[in-house]
Amino acid sequence: MSVNVIIAGPRGKMGFEAIQMVMNEPRFQLVACIDRKNNGKQLKDIPGFPNLETPIYQDLEECFHDVKADVFVDLTVPDFAYEHTKAAMHYDIRPVIGTTGFTEEQLEELHNLASDKKIGCIIAPNFAIGAILMMKFSQMAAKYFPDVDIIEKHHDNKLDAPSGSAIKTAELIRETRKPKHQGHPDEKEVIPGARGADVDGMKIHSIRLPGLVAHQEVIFGASGQTLSIKHDSINRESFMEGIKLSIEAVIELDGLVYGLENIL
Amino acid sequence: MSVNVIIAGPRGKMGFEAIQMVMNEPRFQLVACIDRKNNGKQLKDIPGFPNLETPIYQDLEECFHDVKADVFVDLTVPDFAYEHTKAAMHYDIRPVIGTTGFTEEQLEELHNLASDKKIGCIIAPNFAIGAILMMKFSQMAAKYFPDVDIIEKHHDNKLDAPSGSAIKTAELIRETRKPKHQGHPDEKEVIPGARGADVDGMKIHSIRLPGLVAHQEVIFGASGQTLSIKHDSINRESFMEGIKLSIEAVIELDGLVYGLENIL
Amino acid sequence: MSVNVIIAGPRGKMGFEAIQMVMNEPRFQLVACIDRKNNGKQLKDIPGFPNLETPIYQDLEECFHDVKADVFVDLTVPDFAYEHTKAAMHYDIRPVIGTTGFTEEQLEELHNLASDKKIGCIIAPNFAIGAILMMKFSQMAAKYFPDVDIIEKHHDNKLDAPSGSAIKTAELIRETRKPKHQGHPDEKEVIPGARGADVDGMKIHSIRLPGLVAHQEVIFGASGQTLSIKHDSINRESFMEGIKLSIEAVIELDGLVYGLENIL
Amino acid sequence: MSVNVIIAGPRGKMGFEAIQMVMNEPRFQLVACIDRKNNGKQLKDIPGFPNLETPIYQDLEECFHDVKADVFVDLTVPDFAYEHTKAAMHYDIRPVIGTTGFTEEQLEELHNLASDKKIGCIIAPNFAIGAILMMKFSQMAAKYFPDVDIIEKHHDNKLDAPSGSAIKTAELIRETRKPKHQGHPDEKEVIPGARGADVDGMKIHSIRLPGLVAHQEVIFGASGQTLSIKHDSINRESFMEGIKLSIEAVIELDGLVYGLENIL
Repeated sequence: MSVNVIIAGPRGKMGFEAIQMVMNEPRFQLVACIDRKNNGKQLKDIPGFPNLETPIYQDLEECFHDVKADVFVDLTVPDFAYEHTKAAMHYDIRPVIGTTGFTEEQLEELHNLASDKKIGCIIAPNFAIGAILMMKFSQMAAKYFPDVDIIEKHHDNKLDAPSGSAIKTAELIRETRKPKHQGHPDEKEVIPGARGADVDGMKIHSIRLPGLVAHQEVIFGASGQTLSIKHDSINRESFMEGIKLSIEAVIELDGLVYGLENIL
Repeated sequence: MSVNVIIAGPRGKMGFEAIQMVMNEPRFQLVACIDRKNNGKQLKDIPGFPNLETPIYQDLEECFHDVKADVFVDLTVPDFAYEHTKAAMHYDIRPVIGTTGFTEEQLEELHNLASDKKIGCIIAPNFAIGAILMMKFSQMAAKYFPDVDIIEKHHDNKLDAPSGSAIKTAELIRETRKPKHQGHPDEKEVIPGARGADVDGMKIHSIRLPGLVAHQEVIFGASGQTLSIKHDSINRESFMEGIKLSIEAVIELDGLVYGLENIL
Repeated sequence: MSVNVIIAGPRGKMGFEAIQMVMNEPRFQLVACIDRKNNGKQLKDIPGFPNLETPIYQDLEECFHDVKADVFVDLTVPDFAYEHTKAAMHYDIRPVIGTTGFTEEQLEELHNLASDKKIGCIIAPNFAIGAILMMKFSQMAAKYFPDVDIIEKHHDNKLDAPSGSAIKTAELIRETRKPKHQGHPDEKEVIPGARGADVDGMKIHSIRLPGLVAHQEVIFGASGQTLSIKHDSINRESFMEGIKLSIEAVIELDGLVYGLENIL
Repeated sequence: MSVNVIIAGPRGKMGFEAIQMVMNEPRFQLVACIDRKNNGKQLKDIPGFPNLETPIYQDLEECFHDVKADVFVDLTVPDFAYEHTKAAMHYDIRPVIGTTGFTEEQLEELHNLASDKKIGCIIAPNFAIGAILMMKFSQMAAKYFPDVDIIEKHHDNKLDAPSGSAIKTAELIRETRKPKHQGHPDEKEVIPGARGADVDGMKIHSIRLPGLVAHQEVIFGASGQTLSIKHDSINRESFMEGIKLSIEAVIELDGLVYGLENIL
């Protein structure tokens, strides 16, 4: 049985990769794209795109009305994500959404809508399965090893330190870790900042260098041993495995799931 | 409530570490040691040992008969492990055993004995929690990432390659991994052995160098990302966390558990 | 003083990156491009290229005759590299060539030509400074540490194992290393290939996984310590530092230099 | 030709290792030990020591007077290092000293003494060749790659952060590196300390965990590539290669050399 997929945002980097992924997956069928321009054209009419007769719609509702689809993958900017998600479910099309910008109220409303209609819906702030497994494993390991340092490495264009992922990892670890202020009690920073950012006694270190992309290592230490869990991401292709898995999973669901970690 | 512990093999490296560990744990109490010599002495009589009045017995049964104990930790050579384990349970003392040399029949008999007496018993070929978590996480990750290489590094006195742990890791991964012969179909080894040892299409690489101790890294690759799980062990202290955890866990069990992974 | 640069091969990936690099370097001036098509156009006429009035020539000699240039950077296919290099020197323009395909005779002839004309010429099979430093440092370290394993990691589309760089590294190490057959004399491969490819007693291990690009680590072991030198390359931008350095260096030379290691 | 060696401090960890090293090196001969006790005994009289008839002296001058030696290796506490070094040279025995506590004046005087007598003398604050090569290579790489982060990892009993080695590495890099304040100009620490300790725009990060010993990695980043140089030390055996090399080198010298980097 084939899964019919609509992709919104085909000209973005993620959208472009997603089209390749859907094309390469025998069980998936790309039935339409939604784009802010190119209304009425086909994919093959856009330079650089594969030679597909997939129709392009500018109007979301028109697309959902015309095309028989199973899953709607939204890779556009977050501004309209809420409206898009609601509209898709209204037309009995299961949404797979990568946006983080929902309010608590919006999430609750979408949750209720999915439950009422008994329809699958996946909202995932992060589609990189490797990153999510790193966090999950870290949370599991922290139960046995309370001593942990996080090293995250990014290109030197990144503005914030630590990264959001590193902070989230520390927060997840906190849930299972026996509280501990790490390091020697009389430890002294000869140069300020040496011991990194402190989150509940854990330490986070942010490396910023050209030539890096997005990397994180979580190191647990115990007597005589260390356990390290590391994720290296070099481009957005790393999100495609997660989107693929979400398309497969959303078909089987009968409600809303927030976060890829809950379908792994 | 305190846990009374008997340790067999106090003069071995592992036994010596275990005595320190039990002393440092407020909830544990070292009530006796079993040793092939020094019968009738106390720990403080052996040079280099802590100043404890813990009695030393040469005869196992005599020790079990005289001393009120909750847990028996056996760190001697494997030859008598079966008899020791049976004897301990006979005296209602819960065994924590680190030996690998049991036959299928012996294991089944011990299993039945523990079930009949509703008494905890832990037999663990490997007490390094970090190594066991590494294997467990690898097995979980393989479900999503079928492409995996294992790099294990040991000192250059090691005779066998790959290590037993690396082979065991590959076997555990095989249980959850979608079968795949990795690498390009037209791949060619310009120098034989470059691509390592093959286990069902997975590859294992064995580094042997002075200055190394015992290290293993499992690397999963997928489009645009890699996930690595690494364990570094520098000495036998790494086993102590696992022995400690086993002492705590065996109190709560009412049967035999084989392998530390089953209490994590 | 400004350096006037001609780039051949502007539409290849390397050529495209090189144009950006020359534009961003205040001391460099892009005075012409040589391309198999687009004769008579300017760079700004090619879609996706920067808005530069740099003239494009199809004919090499015509370009060299018309344009006053200091350095000629050839990033085309190797077939015509010999002719290009000779022609550039004939017009007193210093060549910077990234090709490997010269014969011994061709190299000697170019060497003589550069010496006769007292003109700089750089031929470099590898422009990644990081990779060249890795090899150089490895060669230096091998003098003190004869035990060495090389781990190279590439994407799983790569056909040959070990990589050319790994073999070259081993050959360079051989020049300074006290000969030694590594590992325990009674070492046994439980699964063939575990210990990797053997080069004079050294071992090379080739990892192939999706999500990798081009990585190499050289690990030296000695009693109680290891020293590791690692190079990670994620894209062709890594060559640009080497091309930039070559443009600066070729101005100062009065003969041919083969290999970037000889100007570092 | 054999090198006759005197070792001071045989009962310390370093001294004990040094005795093994000298015994295992065919070209070296252990002719005496200097110890604060055991005067008049032989090595074989001390429990745990090898079965050697090497004489033990309590008085330094008496030892130097009685024993025909080529090299004096001092592994005692630094308090008397100056007197020991001077005395050894007085008896035409070449000193190999691992102490850091000399004053400027003392060093200059020893320097003059060695030059006057045309005798070799090596004073080395660090005998770990791997660590010294790491610093040397870092200094060389910084010439081409001004962007650098240093990660040093130690056990959590260490009091100071960053480590002295990390600070020294940064100072050595500063000598060859084009000055640069790294990271994005608008970079912001969401949690203070995330970006580590600043040394002239470079960043140092200090990890402290049980299960670690002494590790340092220097990472250079440039467009599309990173180059990493890493040293891992697991015990004092790592100093033995440096002491061995110093014994060989001091024979050939005719003056004082400070720092192992100057004989590599």
